[in-house]
Amino acid sequence: MSPVRNVLFVMCDQLRRDHLSCYGGRVPTPNLDRLAARGVRFDNAFVQSGVCGPSRMSYYTGRYMSSHGATWNNVPLSVAESTLGDYLRAAGRVATLAGKTHVLPDDEGLARLGIEIESERGALLRAGGFVEVDRYDGHTPPGCESGYADFLRARGYDSADPWSDFVISADGGDRVVSGWQMRNVHLAARVAEEHSETAYMTDVALDWLRERGETPWVLHLSYVKPHWPYMAPAPYHQMFRAADVGPIVRGPQDGTPDEHPVVRAYREHDECVSFAREEVARHVRPAYMGLVAQVDHHIGRVLDALEASGQLRETLVLFTSDHGEYLGDRGLGEKELFYDEVARVPFIIADPDARADATRGRADARFVEAVDVVPTILDALGIAIASHRIEGRSLLPLTRNESAAAWRDCAFCELDYSFRRARRVLGRDVHGCRAFMVRTAEWKYVHWKGFRPQLFDLVRDPTERTDLGAAPGYERVRAELHARLFDWLADLARRTTVADARVEERTDSHRARGIHIGIW
Amino acid sequence: MSPVRNVLFVMCDQLRRDHLSCYGGRVPTPNLDRLAARGVRFDNAFVQSGVCGPSRMSYYTGRYMSSHGATWNNVPLSVAESTLGDYLRAAGRVATLAGKTHVLPDDEGLARLGIEIESERGALLRAGGFVEVDRYDGHTPPGCESGYADFLRARGYDSADPWSDFVISADGGDRVVSGWQMRNVHLAARVAEEHSETAYMTDVALDWLRERGETPWVLHLSYVKPHWPYMAPAPYHQMFRAADVGPIVRGPQDGTPDEHPVVRAYREHDECVSFAREEVARHVRPAYMGLVAQVDHHIGRVLDALEASGQLRETLVLFTSDHGEYLGDRGLGEKELFYDEVARVPFIIADPDARADATRGRADARFVEAVDVVPTILDALGIAIASHRIEGRSLLPLTRNESAAAWRDCAFCELDYSFRRARRVLGRDVHGCRAFMVRTAEWKYVHWKGFRPQLFDLVRDPTERTDLGAAPGYERVRAELHARLFDWLADLARRTTVADARVEERTDSHRARGIHIGIW
Repeated sequence: MSPVRNVLFVMCDQLRRDHLSCYGGRVPTPNLDRLAARGVRFDNAFVQSGVCGPSRMSYYTGRYMSSHGATWNNVPLSVAESTLGDYLRAAGRVATLAGKTHVLPDDEGLARLGIEIESERGALLRAGGFVEVDRYDGHTPPGCESGYADFLRARGYDSADPWSDFVISADGGDRVVSGWQMRNVHLAARVAEEHSETAYMTDVALDWLRERGETPWVLHLSYVKPHWPYMAPAPYHQMFRAADVGPIVRGPQDGTPDEHPVVRAYREHDECVSFAREEVARHVRPAYMGLVAQVDHHIGRVLDALEASGQLRETLVLFTSDHGEYLGDRGLGEKELFYDEVARVPFIIADPDARADATRGRADARFVEAVDVVPTILDALGIAIASHRIEGRSLLPLTRNESAAAWRDCAFCELDYSFRRARRVLGRDVHGCRAFMVRTAEWKYVHWKGFRPQLFDLVRDPTERTDLGAAPGYERVRAELHARLFDWLADLARRTTVADARVEERTDSHRARGIHIGIW
Repeated sequence: MSPVRNVLFVMCDQLRRDHLSCYGGRVPTPNLDRLAARGVRFDNAFVQSGVCGPSRMSYYTGRYMSSHGATWNNVPLSVAESTLGDYLRAAGRVATLAGKTHVLPDDEGLARLGIEIESERGALLRAGGFVEVDRYDGHTPPGCESGYADFLRARGYDSADPWSDFVISADGGDRVVSGWQMRNVHLAARVAEEHSETAYMTDVALDWLRERGETPWVLHLSYVKPHWPYMAPAPYHQMFRAADVGPIVRGPQDGTPDEHPVVRAYREHDECVSFAREEVARHVRPAYMGLVAQVDHHIGRVLDALEASGQLRETLVLFTSDHGEYLGDRGLGEKELFYDEVARVPFIIADPDARADATRGRADARFVEAVDVVPTILDALGIAIASHRIEGRSLLPLTRNESAAAWRDCAFCELDYSFRRARRVLGRDVHGCRAFMVRTAEWKYVHWKGFRPQLFDLVRDPTERTDLGAAPGYERVRAELHARLFDWLADLARRTTVADARVEERTDSHRARGIHIGIW
């Protein structure tokens, strides 16, 4: 019997793994470090897509992007997809949300099925199965689902759009300047730290936890930071300086004709044009680092509260991010593509079960994927895992040091860049922009529709500076990795309407049902 | 403007292409032959699965089995899948059914979405989007959705289960014998021809068409024959004799250790044990041939009625089957696997449009797939094709002799035999039984999870007698065909909730929506 009564699933948006001190990074993150000391820090955790929407839908469904079909931001999650919230509800539990999900309702599907969006069920489907305490997706002025705008106005931020006018703005001497322009992110946001997005959502979560009292809960606390706009409130805006920024990765092929054509096309995007200038990266990174330190601080407040209430010892805590970000590495900005800066994320689990005592404080190099979150939570709560739909695996055998001999030895990630300018740069149609990554401990291989693959030798070239996708001498390696992608594509969960146990039960059963095939 | 007002989509169950006289077969099918003379007879038409359920769901959704997910008989079609009926309804039209669909409602999905199965919408979802005049799936006693049992009782077939007692039974001298036992299929069914399943469903369709009058219609007339039980009513039961049966295909590897392991495992199924005996095949085939002749006769009645009412010249007629059957060829019985006896089906389109005049009576060797039916019907009725979901293509450019330069040069088919005894014979788990076929004009290649592939050289070995799946010297061919399967798997429709036009519109549009990424 697991003692897990509660689950706290904390997500950051666009948080780089290599910035956290527990991952050897330059931002002191004492609270995440103490979480890691209580649990297991996974060193090879990968998201299923380097874009918010599809990555999150994998976190919430336990399914790869090719299975859940929400291939980009604002692509609705099909009404047919069961989420963490659905699985919990079927077991009499509730998934509660404070923060971001990026779920867009499948209005066409709802209309086809005659489901009123304003109904209780419609509300749940709109929310991807979460019951929303406060839904706030970030990087646009908060909508009616969040109380943040009213919260700000009640505290004197007098504006129809206090987010634009205060939270992502700064005093630029003679005038107010916007954090949309990265040149301004060295300035303090016009919002007090305790009124910032990160502080607000932490307060929402803490209030809710207090109200909840002793009733068991599953909370998804989902921060919109350190995602752009990169405006940090004081004192975080000046906690770090350009000198605190480490080396910026550059590869010999960056921007040359030897580079992969899709990567070259990405360089035409605004954010890459900006971040290709090293001074931009060195200007923006300190603000980003400040935002990371701030998130860590507030996660600490939540851990403190759970410790004070005694709940931490019966709460499974998962911490991760929906993807990383380039911040000028390899001359790229933002996310997408498949480099480790984006695809490899921080991933910490603190499992209160006594069986996990032996692994506390450990780093685990085994491959973890975003799709593992749903089955891990269900497993911890003793809820059966729908193995005909869920493509991830429970991580509890890893935290509890049980034999998991046949653990996976690679991770997968996907991209469909049809919504991006790169598609037009390359003259591709909307069906021609798919890419699939497989990453082992030694290699990263990316299949691009219509283009040569990418290949990186992670043993000799751990920062993925030299793309061997067209290099002679690597034919066999490429073929082997391509074969892994084939097997993965062929194995995706398809039979989503019949459980595996039912297949077992029905196998070769037609005679018992009065159907006699081919008897003489 | 197409003059197509009506659509008649006729399907047989388990009908072999090579038995029809218009395909060079030994059963005279004058009515299908005249349909072919009015239209185009496709010589390379393939189903997406050699099993009723998944094949039909591809016919009704325009999507491959891996996309619609109904991987076996009685696997519910997900509530998220849009069908012909949905697309027609959105355009103010209705898809009407007389006969079989094999659609099973997704009760779990309906319950999760709070849709009452007894509601009007629930009824439509239960029926795969069809409005059912009479639903009759065959090979079990007709249920309440069909009027057939009452029809029989009203005509003196006095039984609680007149189907078992009369339709598939025969007078065996001193006792009534069952058509489940193939030894009895040389006898006449205990039902008058005009009360047989095929006659009944034709009457249902003709009555409905008469009532319909001049109002445009889309009718799916879906016969359960010549599917087993192979009981034909007089005179069809004795129309053919053992001598009319042609050669039975045998291959040098049949039943030997050189044979593919999955094919060998199939040989342990009852129907293969029976059909491996040539005398069984020669006993059963005449009854099967009689059932084919009978279906042809009744299709003739429908064509006559449409001709008499003048509707034939404004009706698009499609004729096909959900798959074929082995009937003892290569010592196999029933269906499944990927040999042409099962995967390659008759496929005739009579297009009333004047632009199709030039192709009337032609045979067309281009590849057609079951997934083409939905887009063809929508195209004929001037309804937009949802290209983000529908994986088939309209065939009207072929019937109308328009340039379709980049037509496909291969077809795909799938199998998941996890419900079959073969799985246990081979010791596989329910996730380990998938197979994927690609067939070009020259080659057939099948990838089997966990086993070597199959390969047939269709130029030198058109009856697929020698499996080259492990033969030396064919490595390059196998690799090329495997690469086609990879591309097909990678290209399956995933983004089912956003139309392609919307992607075009939204490409690179974030700035217009007030989101400024990475500007300095």
